[in-house]
Amino acid sequence: GYARIDHDRVRRRGFAEVVYCEGKTPEQSAEILARLAARGESNVLGTRADVETFELVRHMVPDAEYHPVPRAIVVRRGSERQIGSVMVLAAGTSDLRVAEEAALTASVMGSRVERVYDVGVAGLHRLLREIHRIRQARVVIVVAGMEGALMSVVAGLIDKPVIGVPTSVGYGAQLQGLTPMLSMLTSCVPGSSVVNIDNGFGAGYLAHMINELGEGVHGHRED
Amino acid sequence: GYARIDHDRVRRRGFAEVVYCEGKTPEQSAEILARLAARGESNVLGTRADVETFELVRHMVPDAEYHPVPRAIVVRRGSERQIGSVMVLAAGTSDLRVAEEAALTASVMGSRVERVYDVGVAGLHRLLREIHRIRQARVVIVVAGMEGALMSVVAGLIDKPVIGVPTSVGYGAQLQGLTPMLSMLTSCVPGSSVVNIDNGFGAGYLAHMINELGEGVHGHRED
Amino acid sequence: GYARIDHDRVRRRGFAEVVYCEGKTPEQSAEILARLAARGESNVLGTRADVETFELVRHMVPDAEYHPVPRAIVVRRGSERQIGSVMVLAAGTSDLRVAEEAALTASVMGSRVERVYDVGVAGLHRLLREIHRIRQARVVIVVAGMEGALMSVVAGLIDKPVIGVPTSVGYGAQLQGLTPMLSMLTSCVPGSSVVNIDNGFGAGYLAHMINELGEGVHGHRED
Amino acid sequence: GYARIDHDRVRRRGFAEVVYCEGKTPEQSAEILARLAARGESNVLGTRADVETFELVRHMVPDAEYHPVPRAIVVRRGSERQIGSVMVLAAGTSDLRVAEEAALTASVMGSRVERVYDVGVAGLHRLLREIHRIRQARVVIVVAGMEGALMSVVAGLIDKPVIGVPTSVGYGAQLQGLTPMLSMLTSCVPGSSVVNIDNGFGAGYLAHMINELGEGVHGHRED
Amino acid sequence: GYARIDHDRVRRRGFAEVVYCEGKTPEQSAEILARLAARGESNVLGTRADVETFELVRHMVPDAEYHPVPRAIVVRRGSERQIGSVMVLAAGTSDLRVAEEAALTASVMGSRVERVYDVGVAGLHRLLREIHRIRQARVVIVVAGMEGALMSVVAGLIDKPVIGVPTSVGYGAQLQGLTPMLSMLTSCVPGSSVVNIDNGFGAGYLAHMINELGEGVHGHRED
Amino acid sequence: GYARIDHDRVRRRGFAEVVYCEGKTPEQSAEILARLAARGESNVLGTRADVETFELVRHMVPDAEYHPVPRAIVVRRGSERQIGSVMVLAAGTSDLRVAEEAALTASVMGSRVERVYDVGVAGLHRLLREIHRIRQARVVIVVAGMEGALMSVVAGLIDKPVIGVPTSVGYGAQLQGLTPMLSMLTSCVPGSSVVNIDNGFGAGYLAHMINELGEGVHGHRED
Amino acid sequence: GYARIDHDRVRRRGFAEVVYCEGKTPEQSAEILARLAARGESNVLGTRADVETFELVRHMVPDAEYHPVPRAIVVRRGSERQIGSVMVLAAGTSDLRVAEEAALTASVMGSRVERVYDVGVAGLHRLLREIHRIRQARVVIVVAGMEGALMSVVAGLIDKPVIGVPTSVGYGAQLQGLTPMLSMLTSCVPGSSVVNIDNGFGAGYLAHMINELGEGVHGHRED
Amino acid sequence: GYARIDHDRVRRRGFAEVVYCEGKTPEQSAEILARLAARGESNVLGTRADVETFELVRHMVPDAEYHPVPRAIVVRRGSERQIGSVMVLAAGTSDLRVAEEAALTASVMGSRVERVYDVGVAGLHRLLREIHRIRQARVVIVVAGMEGALMSVVAGLIDKPVIGVPTSVGYGAQLQGLTPMLSMLTSCVPGSSVVNIDNGFGAGYLAHMINELGEGVHGHRED
Ligand SMILES: Nc1ncnc2c1ncn2[C@@H]1O[C@H](COP(=O)(O)O)[C@@H](O)[C@H]1O
Ligand SMILES: Nc1ncnc2c1ncn2[C@@H]1O[C@H](COP(=O)(O)O)[C@@H](O)[C@H]1O
Ligand SMILES: Nc1ncnc2c1ncn2[C@@H]1O[C@H](COP(=O)(O)O)[C@@H](O)[C@H]1O
Ligand SMILES: Nc1ncnc2c1ncn2[C@@H]1O[C@H](COP(=O)(O)O)[C@@H](O)[C@H]1O
Ligand SMILES: [Mg+2]
Ligand SMILES: [Mg+2]
Ligand SMILES: [Mg+2]
Ligand SMILES: [Mg+2]
Ligand SMILES: [Mg+2]
Ligand SMILES: [Mg+2]
Ligand SMILES: [Mg+2]
Ligand SMILES: [Mg+2]
Repeated sequence: GYARIDHDRVRRRGFAEVVYCEGKTPEQSAEILARLAARGESNVLGTRADVETFELVRHMVPDAEYHPVPRAIVVRRGSERQIGSVMVLAAGTSDLRVAEEAALTASVMGSRVERVYDVGVAGLHRLLREIHRIRQARVVIVVAGMEGALMSVVAGLIDKPVIGVPTSVGYGAQLQGLTPMLSMLTSCVPGSSVVNIDNGFGAGYLAHMINELGEGVHGHRED
Repeated sequence: GYARIDHDRVRRRGFAEVVYCEGKTPEQSAEILARLAARGESNVLGTRADVETFELVRHMVPDAEYHPVPRAIVVRRGSERQIGSVMVLAAGTSDLRVAEEAALTASVMGSRVERVYDVGVAGLHRLLREIHRIRQARVVIVVAGMEGALMSVVAGLIDKPVIGVPTSVGYGAQLQGLTPMLSMLTSCVPGSSVVNIDNGFGAGYLAHMINELGEGVHGHRED
Repeated sequence: GYARIDHDRVRRRGFAEVVYCEGKTPEQSAEILARLAARGESNVLGTRADVETFELVRHMVPDAEYHPVPRAIVVRRGSERQIGSVMVLAAGTSDLRVAEEAALTASVMGSRVERVYDVGVAGLHRLLREIHRIRQARVVIVVAGMEGALMSVVAGLIDKPVIGVPTSVGYGAQLQGLTPMLSMLTSCVPGSSVVNIDNGFGAGYLAHMINELGEGVHGHRED
Repeated sequence: GYARIDHDRVRRRGFAEVVYCEGKTPEQSAEILARLAARGESNVLGTRADVETFELVRHMVPDAEYHPVPRAIVVRRGSERQIGSVMVLAAGTSDLRVAEEAALTASVMGSRVERVYDVGVAGLHRLLREIHRIRQARVVIVVAGMEGALMSVVAGLIDKPVIGVPTSVGYGAQLQGLTPMLSMLTSCVPGSSVVNIDNGFGAGYLAHMINELGEGVHGHRED
Repeated sequence: GYARIDHDRVRRRGFAEVVYCEGKTPEQSAEILARLAARGESNVLGTRADVETFELVRHMVPDAEYHPVPRAIVVRRGSERQIGSVMVLAAGTSDLRVAEEAALTASVMGSRVERVYDVGVAGLHRLLREIHRIRQARVVIVVAGMEGALMSVVAGLIDKPVIGVPTSVGYGAQLQGLTPMLSMLTSCVPGSSVVNIDNGFGAGYLAHMINELGEGVHGHRED
Repeated sequence: GYARIDHDRVRRRGFAEVVYCEGKTPEQSAEILARLAARGESNVLGTRADVETFELVRHMVPDAEYHPVPRAIVVRRGSERQIGSVMVLAAGTSDLRVAEEAALTASVMGSRVERVYDVGVAGLHRLLREIHRIRQARVVIVVAGMEGALMSVVAGLIDKPVIGVPTSVGYGAQLQGLTPMLSMLTSCVPGSSVVNIDNGFGAGYLAHMINELGEGVHGHRED
Repeated sequence: GYARIDHDRVRRRGFAEVVYCEGKTPEQSAEILARLAARGESNVLGTRADVETFELVRHMVPDAEYHPVPRAIVVRRGSERQIGSVMVLAAGTSDLRVAEEAALTASVMGSRVERVYDVGVAGLHRLLREIHRIRQARVVIVVAGMEGALMSVVAGLIDKPVIGVPTSVGYGAQLQGLTPMLSMLTSCVPGSSVVNIDNGFGAGYLAHMINELGEGVHGHRED
Repeated sequence: GYARIDHDRVRRRGFAEVVYCEGKTPEQSAEILARLAARGESNVLGTRADVETFELVRHMVPDAEYHPVPRAIVVRRGSERQIGSVMVLAAGTSDLRVAEEAALTASVMGSRVERVYDVGVAGLHRLLREIHRIRQARVVIVVAGMEGALMSVVAGLIDKPVIGVPTSVGYGAQLQGLTPMLSMLTSCVPGSSVVNIDNGFGAGYLAHMINELGEGVHGHRED
């Protein structure tokens, strides 16, 4: 009764419903994940999952994996081909949880992912040293807390779509991430857009969609 | 003294600096636009421009165009080829100003643009009737004021990147666009991202970049 | 000394004072509930009650019931007749706590309640499949977290009063429910109104009052 | 191109699309209103309309009426029967604009409307003197600015659904109506719900729907 | 080193510095309280104190008292005369903590205090029944959470200064007390003013000062 | 129809209803003021009135006065006795409008008013020089914009009730007065309370009530 | 009566009171400026002054100057020596008003001022090209609207105190400057601090004080 | 992989990267601190560190110190010379944590630090008694919670740069420090600027930079 899985989603959008485990009981999350895995139409992903939920899933789906940094559950049921690539940047070490959620999501969906971490604007040369490599990617995710200035700086230096992910890292006027979120939204550099605070999942998902376009995968799955 | 034009931008990002005319004197805006037009490296765009600014520009650049709905100035100096396409949806008639800014920007940068307007969720069948056509585009811009629910509904029905543009259309709890902005950022549907309130320009710019990727234009212009 | 029960309320409003147990000591809540049960003029309801409070109540009122999902205490002292009906929709599994508080309240007051859960706009066909059944109800409660877009979509499809209940399900820009609350208040679809975040109780109460009107129960109890 | 009238709305929801004239050009508003009037399936309503818009409408639809206090345009094309009733309360004289928008909307849709104005809680006896009359109505709209306390007081005294309409009347901490809006949403009295700030239209619309239910009009128009 | 007691305060303002124990270590709070008690110039009050702090104080000052509801420590060192009176109203049982802090403060400073609790506007007759008694007081404190409407209603019925104390009782749009705070500040009834959320102490302190004025105590202590 | 004057107010609260002219038409305001003046039971006050409203009043009530700084209309119909006193402090010259509204209100109600203006904390010695005189008053109103620090400083130096009036003077982070309002509410000095931003009227009204208490005027008018 | 000039300020703080002309009548501003000029103890500055105010001042003080970009009035009465230097950076042309207010203030107080304008992070090379020159200054003011990222980038590249001035340039999520203000306050780069939105004056004033310290001017004027 | 230490920072900015331990695992923080200590180019500082992190560091760096009040880790690797001085003021005992973070930071960087604590404006004479001593410092840090009025008062009395540090000490309308932050930003006294809420570190860092300027240390380290 409580869950009405959108089994049509793989056909319509190319990837199974992703389960947001926060606010569900471990039993609810596990059951939904197991049912999605059983269909086996695409890789299966559960985000914001604790270890207790994972243990329940593993009982039902022995090959399920747990990724502790992004707190995610993955069941591999799709092709292993990886296209791309998607670049994930993180401003500081404290932003890793979110960056890894983005990287895992894009990867599970089929993108090749590269990472450049701890390149906040406090020491700009660290970023500039990697800029050539960053420019090779098809789409760039910038994960940053504090004031989120990294996103504007990156967007100004490259000519690919940039997805900003503000994080809740910081305190006081950082307002649990509202400040970098507002900051990224009012960036003086065009070519970027923003997802919700700490929403690594959403950024990885969108990055993969853009990456697919660049590969010449032109969908219209529904039709 | 007051302006330091980023003439390197065409090489670095593929399109000349776009002039945000609000908060500049008409003289300042006009001079910058004329100097960019004189270089002739790409089309030139000035946004949020009033007629007075346009008159000054026209004196210096006779073939400049004024687009009254989005209040934009255009000088054609680039190729006329159009790739694509970019789809622009608008929820209501009052959102047209912003929708047209997005459409013009993408078009001036080189995208073929399609429009589907007044398809707010109050009469869902209007949207569903067009959904097949919407799915043909490479990237979809959704312009919506009030509560901005249209973006989630569209993103749930297609498998292409969606760019949400919240508008300030509404009153009271709409908070001059903050409500649809927050709403779009917390959408329960992945595959979308958000630009600033009323920022048709930013949406059109990003949409064109994604559209280019889909065309196989793989940049790395700088290198 | 601490509580001044409004014993006139059944006569004036048709239902006994409902006890909001949060912020009261278990002893205070239990005593008030027991005194209301002792009068036996109508069913008795305590919301946001923990198990400790319930144990105290059960000592004094052996036939008291505890409903763990909505965390509510009920003592049946009224008629068993149920009129109706009230429809409760929930966007996601995480919204169940609130949806069940709404459903229980309406039911305890005398409404027949129907439920359609997990019909968020990410997979619209799930909602459309049930729309005929939803239209049969006299009044519809829509419980939704994230951006709350479900309420507008439902209101646009039916011709009955819709009560929106924003929930605190989500994170970041969801602002503990402020975002769907603002969103529902600025809905582009008329025919709806909104209660406080997570206030399933208030929605159920109002829905029952409207349902009663539809039954031809025309009150003026006071006079 | 700019407007896609939802002509299905009368069948689906019992009343034609209401035109929100703010943010549209007078020409756009007038044309839409004229087209709706031409179909003649129900009364036609345009809200937030200025006199210039009305003059354009009158050219095309000679029997159009203008209501200056709520700034609304009405074209009568429906039945003249009035059911009900809907009671509209206003806390102060400055709230009249909004109260009259609510009253007009309910009336144009087919409800008999009664008014009790200037009964703010500063002089409670004014309200108490009218309470018997207020209790006769099927549904009560409470329009109040400042802190909006009137809604709670009224809801506590009657047993009918109450619709709160916060207004932007006040200054400073009144926050253009956010304060009474939040206040009404957190009312300690159940049986009420809230619409957007200054949204007399939405309150009147919903009140009529509830009033209809009380009349035994049980819709399911779509089916 | 950490504390610089303002020993001049009794002479300047008629009452010793009151110790806000939150955010201090128990040792710091206890030492300051003991030093104030040792001077013995007036009663001594510590607010927001936990039992651990009290135990430390009792070691040094055996006749110290602990008041668990308002979580306050009192050492009696002043006159026992009580003038007055100060009336404390509370809207609901959950507001008692704050109401008792107000009552204790005024009493410890030398006011006779009366209490009327659980008279929220949901059952107005409960308040009206006590209104005669309320009018006898010199100054009235109104403690209310949720939307705080009680303050306006009381102020409209009496002709004495009213001090509003918004509380954090409620959830969602109540915003931890910001809503009743804003509400009380924008009250449509003059003759009232507001202190910080949950600040029973500040209300009791001010009430006593006003009460003293009414007694003909005309200070100018400093001079 | 639009106004229901609370003629009972003089008996109940000692002063006629004060008319808030903002948001009323000049005709509405003028008529209400004239009717109050005609009863002649107390002085009559209209706040936030423009000259146009005053001209209409003067036609009907030739002895009406206009006070341009606070934009208020006064009709003298009460006793001329003045008790007191009430002290009005203003931090800066830009706060005068509000300070004069407070001073006029208290004076029209029967208080003797003293003024000390332009004593902001930037030059503390200006305040200290007047502190002896300030201590003579029964109650002190502090009008301050910017950050509103003056209120805390004054309250710390005297032993009389202090009423803080935050003003909207300032820009940016001053948030149209929200900053000094919040600041005054969280003052580290007890003995003060706060009214709405720019609400000189409310401060003057309350100050007079407190002043009256100090005079031994003990009301209970209603009984 | 309305103004109490702090003539002690030159002795205490080294510079005469600066007049904030907004919210004062032109007559009030002009008179205060003229009186300060008459004392002739230091240069005199009036900020946010319109031309009307200036014309009044010029009548009384013929050598007064008007600076239209920052809208400031200056009367030279101090030494002409200039120490330094203070560097003023501006992100965009629209920030000039504020940048020039900062530059003028520091200069009028006695600092040599250098300017580097239009070096926003969208074209980082423009900034990097000037970084050597920027490093020569003793203190750097960064004026930036939109998201204000320039301040962090600059602070990371130099080893001098940085003063951030957020401006209200931008729209939507820029929140009239709150976004860059919050952004600068949560900068991931230490060595900076922030003044109010658009407060060029405050930045210039503080910069001069720091510059003076670097010159070996060690004040203690008061003593 | 996770950390990219900015080893260039000592050369560029004169002090090693300071490690913000919140949001990092103890292992991550400890490793970074140990690597910085190993280079031995300057003192090393870790802020917001818990004891567990310190224990890990001590294993690797036996002479590391832990400062429990500001929760900081220090490793001495720089010169012991102290210039200055920097004055740290705290309004109340509850602000000590933040004040000590500021004092420690400035001291570890090479400043001589003086402290004057518990001098809030409630008892102004405590501050005035120390004002002569405060004036001797080169730069003054003011740490204050509640409404933060102390900063304005101090800035008005001295002629040195003032750095305001709002703290989260307080409740309700204090908004976890937003109120004193906004308050300090809108101070009516020039010569001050503000850092983030509770950011003692940032204030100490900046104070040291200014102190160095006053010593004649003129950097341009990079060049
Ligand atoms: N970490 C996440 N953040 C935001 N949305 C998510 C996340 N994980 C899953 N979702 C989406 O949230 C929705 C939750 O749906 P459900 O699991 O049915 O409650 C799905 O449509 C997912 O696409
Ligand atoms: N005054 C009003 N306030 C809020 N919504 C309105 C108002 N007037 C009309 N509407 C609704 O707003 C929507 C506007 O649609 P449109 O006229 O197509 O832009 C319609 O669905 C109307 O139901
Ligand atoms: N300047 C003012 N600010 C706030 N309230 C006011 C002001 N002037 C009058 N009022 C109050 O506002 C209420 C307005 O009532 P009315 O004039 O009936 O709309 C009255 O109760 C007055 O006491
Ligand atoms: N307590 C603190 N508050 C604010 N920023 C800090 C604090 N401690 C260190 N930082 C800065 O925060 C940044 C964090 O960098 P990282 O340690 O690489 O994540 C560094 O540039 C530090 O200068
Ligand atoms: Mg689901
Ligand atoms: Mg530029
Ligand atoms: Mg009760
Ligand atoms: Mg339409
Ligand atoms: Mg103290
Ligand atoms: Mg009235
Ligand atoms: Mg002055
Ligand atoms: Mg680092």
